[in-house]
Amino acid sequence: MNSIKLGLLGFGVVGQGIARLIRENGDTLAARIGVPVEICAIAVRDLDKKRDEAPEGVIFTDDPYEVVDNPDVDIVVEVMGGDDPALALIVKAAANRKHIVTANKHLLAIQGETIYRAVEEAGVALGFEAAVAGAIPIVRTLKKAFAANRVRSIYGIVNGTCNYILSSMADDGTSYEEALSAAQELGFAEADPKFDVEGIDSAHKIAILASLAFETSIDFAGVYTEGISQLTPADIELAKEFGYAIKLLAVAKRKDNGIEVRVNPAMVPLTDPIASVKGAYNAIELDCAEAEINTLVGPGAGSGPTASAILGDVADIAQRAVYGGGFKPPMNVKFDKRESIPLIPMDELVSRYYLRFTVPDRPGVLAQLSGALGERNISIASMIQKGHEQLSAVSVVLTTHAAKEADLKAALAKIETLGLSDEPAMVIRIESATAP
Amino acid sequence: MNSIKLGLLGFGVVGQGIARLIRENGDTLAARIGVPVEICAIAVRDLDKKRDEAPEGVIFTDDPYEVVDNPDVDIVVEVMGGDDPALALIVKAAANRKHIVTANKHLLAIQGETIYRAVEEAGVALGFEAAVAGAIPIVRTLKKAFAANRVRSIYGIVNGTCNYILSSMADDGTSYEEALSAAQELGFAEADPKFDVEGIDSAHKIAILASLAFETSIDFAGVYTEGISQLTPADIELAKEFGYAIKLLAVAKRKDNGIEVRVNPAMVPLTDPIASVKGAYNAIELDCAEAEINTLVGPGAGSGPTASAILGDVADIAQRAVYGGGFKPPMNVKFDKRESIPLIPMDELVSRYYLRFTVPDRPGVLAQLSGALGERNISIASMIQKGHEQLSAVSVVLTTHAAKEADLKAALAKIETLGLSDEPAMVIRIESATAP
Repeated sequence: MNSIKLGLLGFGVVGQGIARLIRENGDTLAARIGVPVEICAIAVRDLDKKRDEAPEGVIFTDDPYEVVDNPDVDIVVEVMGGDDPALALIVKAAANRKHIVTANKHLLAIQGETIYRAVEEAGVALGFEAAVAGAIPIVRTLKKAFAANRVRSIYGIVNGTCNYILSSMADDGTSYEEALSAAQELGFAEADPKFDVEGIDSAHKIAILASLAFETSIDFAGVYTEGISQLTPADIELAKEFGYAIKLLAVAKRKDNGIEVRVNPAMVPLTDPIASVKGAYNAIELDCAEAEINTLVGPGAGSGPTASAILGDVADIAQRAVYGGGFKPPMNVKFDKRESIPLIPMDELVSRYYLRFTVPDRPGVLAQLSGALGERNISIASMIQKGHEQLSAVSVVLTTHAAKEADLKAALAKIETLGLSDEPAMVIRIESATAP
Repeated sequence: MNSIKLGLLGFGVVGQGIARLIRENGDTLAARIGVPVEICAIAVRDLDKKRDEAPEGVIFTDDPYEVVDNPDVDIVVEVMGGDDPALALIVKAAANRKHIVTANKHLLAIQGETIYRAVEEAGVALGFEAAVAGAIPIVRTLKKAFAANRVRSIYGIVNGTCNYILSSMADDGTSYEEALSAAQELGFAEADPKFDVEGIDSAHKIAILASLAFETSIDFAGVYTEGISQLTPADIELAKEFGYAIKLLAVAKRKDNGIEVRVNPAMVPLTDPIASVKGAYNAIELDCAEAEINTLVGPGAGSGPTASAILGDVADIAQRAVYGGGFKPPMNVKFDKRESIPLIPMDELVSRYYLRFTVPDRPGVLAQLSGALGERNISIASMIQKGHEQLSAVSVVLTTHAAKEADLKAALAKIETLGLSDEPAMVIRIESATAP
């Protein structure tokens, strides 16, 4: 084998980043692999579009099947995104016994099973480090570094847009809307930010990580997802007073009765390394039976980091191909050895909570609130009461000890019947890994 | 191949940790590799010592050559430590075409070349993830994840003992001596702590990482090493006022004129993720051309994390052996392709500095200090002056803009000739990656 030949599906910012990295660092990459890496075919939607990073001597085509069916291609790199035709192309590439590297988190979260089976049956390799948290080597860590370890839980900041918005709100005291506009102007958020700010993108990523860490299939429809648009600067300020930062966390935990997989805004202790992760950076905390808490922090997206992650996978696969190795199942264990583990319904979640009520400033209100919580065995850990500018209402802010989500819901429903406020209570879960 | 057989050199806490992990997580490991892993021979110094985790059916011997020459052994795991006979055993194991996994950072830093050559010539694999920062997957990240990337610098907290002591001093205001005693009582520091507190252990680790990241040989004798014993609670307190934490940092930077490799106490911005790394935890920050700043945080030592890292390497090597793959050079590139890069002498270092002078409280002193610094083109960024309990002396504390180490030395020598103080100035370098 004289060189490793890549076929690219898509040539947007990430695809062009790959071409640039091969041009700039190709010698290093070749030294590490043993042979050079070159791009031999690229499928694009519009052949007429001008592209800065188009390498010379490469076949450009608007028929992606010309890439996956090209006999010269060793590794198909899917950076086109979307479901259709990406899924069919990956399955065809595997059938053609080509290795696959993809950054398509949406596809893996929703259609992962189809891809994993196709790859496993063909005995080819699948790299997807770039699908989760950019250049942060989390997939590699779960697949390899902790092979003899048991992951108990994963806490991740895996969406840079949300972290950028929450960091701006915390540092500059801006509203959610202002922070979002600023993020959009700087290119950190899409014109339609729904996918990011509602937590869907984070949910894709945590579903992939949970599936890998716990060696099971995750039904994406069962992943609880809550976004950040309802958060106010007041909550972020109050969180600080209690010693917390608010982050959009993607969480996966292995419990005796199943797996918890969810995305929600959460308060994390300011002493936790991920509390100080700012801007569009991502961070993932792994709580492992044998390696305590490991935290990985880095840029979560962008042309350079994503291309770097893709070429890390290419190097890994290419080395094996050059040195004549075989390829193991993409999700650590074979399909027939994967466990079936149920997702735990949110009602059974046990968490500590931050609660903020806007209530009239009159005697007896506090007793009503704490009474309703007490009826459901929810005990209060700490409390702050703050006057509003209008003197007739105050914010009662409290944190609870561990309580069951169903009990909290019941208590909040009871409180609503008391008619104390027109505003619903603000509820934020409190998370803490046991990191020092 | 029906199973992968390990031969252990040494059976102390780490060796017993490996046996325990195989017992507890052997099924997971087997599923990931394809075949089970078992220990078949263990070399110990004292055959009569009782051991809790001795697996059944294993050959115990006090002749380590019985392990490295045992034809059943696939992978030799060296967890005995020290130079002699570890070096000779590893070289013999490679000659016997056995793969090697070692946690011996001292040996790799000092005798790495001999080992890398022996392993490369034999075409076997060498795993040493456990030699640096416990379970933190830093070796794997440098070897694989960032294969198409260029590392510009590495900043690491790679000694848990020192970080424990510095964290105690910062959080509890204790003196260095008190914090060291507490660390010794809790088992975080050895009775003779020299190796740790003088930065030698950190220097070993950064030499290994620099060699790997920059694909060159590092002359260990040329690594500048400064420990933490001279630090006072006052400096830690003052650092906080300036917005910094003091950490013992191991630093390796690629510059145009060579590589900077050194270990010294350093001030890192409180906003940097590694500033909040507490207790015996380790952290490593990689500044990469294509992946910005990546930070990895985790436990730096201990039986579980070290055994986990070793078995991660075992899994990697075993998979390749099972799937019939070959093995690439242990340090990424072949010896004949490694660059020869000079170490940059400390005098040429450019850094920002924290300086604390104890001087008489009288007019003109400040002018003398700033004059001596100004003569060498060292400009002051910020300053605090604090009265001592004895009113005749004050602490003048300042931070400088970037200056050359040789100029600083010359300025300090000049200041010493002024006879202002019996105490030498306290000098601490200020480091900051550009992490957000």
